[in-house]
Amino acid sequence: MARIVMKFGGTSVADLDRIRNVATRVAREVEAGNEVAVVVSAMAGTTNQLVAWCQGLSPMFDAREYDAVVATGEQVTAGLLAIALQTQGFDARSWMGWQIPVATDGQHGKARINGIAGETLIERMQSGQIPIVAGFQGLGPDNRVTTLGRGGSDTSAVALAAALKADRCDIYTDVDGVYTTDPRIVARAKKLAKITYEEMLELASVGAKVLQTRSVELAMKERVRVQVLSSFTDAPGTLVVDEDEIVEQEIVAGIAYSRDEAKVTVRRVPDKPGIAAAIFVPLAEAGINVDMIVQNVAEDGTTDMTFTVGKTDLLNAQTCLEAARAKIGYAEITTDRDVAKLSVVGVGMRSHAGVAGTMFKTLADRGINIQVISTSEIKVSVLIGAEYTELAVRALHTAYGLDA
Amino acid sequence: MARIVMKFGGTSVADLDRIRNVATRVAREVEAGNEVAVVVSAMAGTTNQLVAWCQGLSPMFDAREYDAVVATGEQVTAGLLAIALQTQGFDARSWMGWQIPVATDGQHGKARINGIAGETLIERMQSGQIPIVAGFQGLGPDNRVTTLGRGGSDTSAVALAAALKADRCDIYTDVDGVYTTDPRIVARAKKLAKITYEEMLELASVGAKVLQTRSVELAMKERVRVQVLSSFTDAPGTLVVDEDEIVEQEIVAGIAYSRDEAKVTVRRVPDKPGIAAAIFVPLAEAGINVDMIVQNVAEDGTTDMTFTVGKTDLLNAQTCLEAARAKIGYAEITTDRDVAKLSVVGVGMRSHAGVAGTMFKTLADRGINIQVISTSEIKVSVLIGAEYTELAVRALHTAYGLDA
Repeated sequence: MARIVMKFGGTSVADLDRIRNVATRVAREVEAGNEVAVVVSAMAGTTNQLVAWCQGLSPMFDAREYDAVVATGEQVTAGLLAIALQTQGFDARSWMGWQIPVATDGQHGKARINGIAGETLIERMQSGQIPIVAGFQGLGPDNRVTTLGRGGSDTSAVALAAALKADRCDIYTDVDGVYTTDPRIVARAKKLAKITYEEMLELASVGAKVLQTRSVELAMKERVRVQVLSSFTDAPGTLVVDEDEIVEQEIVAGIAYSRDEAKVTVRRVPDKPGIAAAIFVPLAEAGINVDMIVQNVAEDGTTDMTFTVGKTDLLNAQTCLEAARAKIGYAEITTDRDVAKLSVVGVGMRSHAGVAGTMFKTLADRGINIQVISTSEIKVSVLIGAEYTELAVRALHTAYGLDA
Repeated sequence: MARIVMKFGGTSVADLDRIRNVATRVAREVEAGNEVAVVVSAMAGTTNQLVAWCQGLSPMFDAREYDAVVATGEQVTAGLLAIALQTQGFDARSWMGWQIPVATDGQHGKARINGIAGETLIERMQSGQIPIVAGFQGLGPDNRVTTLGRGGSDTSAVALAAALKADRCDIYTDVDGVYTTDPRIVARAKKLAKITYEEMLELASVGAKVLQTRSVELAMKERVRVQVLSSFTDAPGTLVVDEDEIVEQEIVAGIAYSRDEAKVTVRRVPDKPGIAAAIFVPLAEAGINVDMIVQNVAEDGTTDMTFTVGKTDLLNAQTCLEAARAKIGYAEITTDRDVAKLSVVGVGMRSHAGVAGTMFKTLADRGINIQVISTSEIKVSVLIGAEYTELAVRALHTAYGLDA
């Protein structure tokens, strides 16, 4: 017997048939002798509609009211799934964030969970009831509904699993696991049986949109074993676990790519102390996330500063830098939207040299120019021309021996 | 300065434009120096969709889960209207039933309000904030969401007006007041400036579907002055008030009709004590509401018992009587769905004779046969063939001097 939190995303509960299907999956786990709690998202499309209504009334809507409006989506699904489970003969009941409560810090629209009172739910599970928890929502110190930000239901599920001391948190979604790379690009991509939290974090943040980054961070912190699997097939998924659980660690776990970034180059900046701060502090204050950064020093005492920002932030970044032009003292700004970021991720890199070298050589052999490089302990990322994305991903997938 | 509760029904908040229009109406009352609290229904169509989902999963759905699901409709509207008012520069915030709280008896799906904690809302209003209260919902003793049954938002509004000691409860709907009869039948029907609670109750229960009956009962009990008016025009509405407030009382306030009833006749029942109980107790136990009842004694020691039930209950009533046939001992049951109930309503009847006589003579002059008669202190109702409905309503409207 295990205690399991099962989380179902919006496409998994998109209509009554799918909700019935979810109920059947939950029932199967219960009948196998497990204690189960469920976390649900809103039915696919619902949240977008609710957000559009808020925005339609005011682009600067009150986040507290936004929370009251959008939290209804998960409330509906929780009630409906409870009914579906009851119809199949199981004892189930819905729980809103304010009823448990899921205490949050009260930052409306992007709240963080402070704690979940799990005792009552544990008692109910032990007495045979299945709690169906509305994901994405909690209760602020102001006694008002808070939401966790888009995709927050993954975080709800992991936090609940921690509070319930669950053996596993199963995240059901529309993909059946985490792959060595995007199977739409590399047909021979393999599903990973296991992956470490650290690798998952790097993959999630560079474009493998399987799990919300925050939920993986929380899982790592709370040591919650997470499984990603499909609600439409019966195939086993991918387990996201601690490094210790993975006996035979591959050097490279996967190849990720992202076309969501743009490159900005600030040319001929005086090469003196404080110049990086002069550029990046205003960007940070404007809420613009800067990713890769390289600096090339020229002979004439100036330097070129190159970095990437999200494509949606590009215009803001330009405006911000124009405003700071006098202070920074640059010659010009150039931008490039036609770039892709490629990342090779694997905890095995820590103990194996040569991973970056293989990457650079593989790309060079295909005549692909590397524009920017950045590295972390378990990741090497490069910026290349967007038109080479597929070619580069396929070449690297083969070079690291990942082809099935 | 007055304190006003404004309630807006589903058609008044059906889309963003209408919600903005509602915000403008609320703003106008606030700018006139009034303290205003608002009660909202779900956007038109929303509740039907939510109910259909519950029914689609199980015809015997858990009423507690049904409540969690359907209460979301009003929550959405409350949040959106708060945003719309803020956009117009007003301080407004949404309130769910559990936040105030609106304490109910916990009968899920058809809860009754036990009390509303109005102090905080009064303080907020006095400090210039506009509370936007989600109608139709409350909190049960089990700490779960309860709903008041269909149309319950009117009751929410009246109960809130009582708790806030409001001077008036304005119910905005898609009609602009209460008329002497249905204007679709009688073009010369007049809008009533005032009507008593008692008259409104009789009109509401016989088919003038302007206000939910429960809300009128509550208004009468709590002496809440209710105004019915349109959210689409600026015309003054109809005030529903205590008899004392109406100086020049008309004898007849209005003519109502209903085609929702069917006639049942149980023929040749032994005419002995207890026979009425033998017929009506089983019907009551089956939850079937019986309205008009007449009994004719024949010469042979048997009697015919005629009564009306809602058309939707007719089949149930027949099944119920078939089952009790041996006990009742009747010869046969006949039914007639082609009937209409006509009612003449007015508190003035108490002190004026001849109202019933005028009715009978007017119908007789048109050759309309009266099948059943029932009377109350302020109402005379007759059952006639459905095909005569319009003719009869027009004739009575003229006969009582109600034509504009």
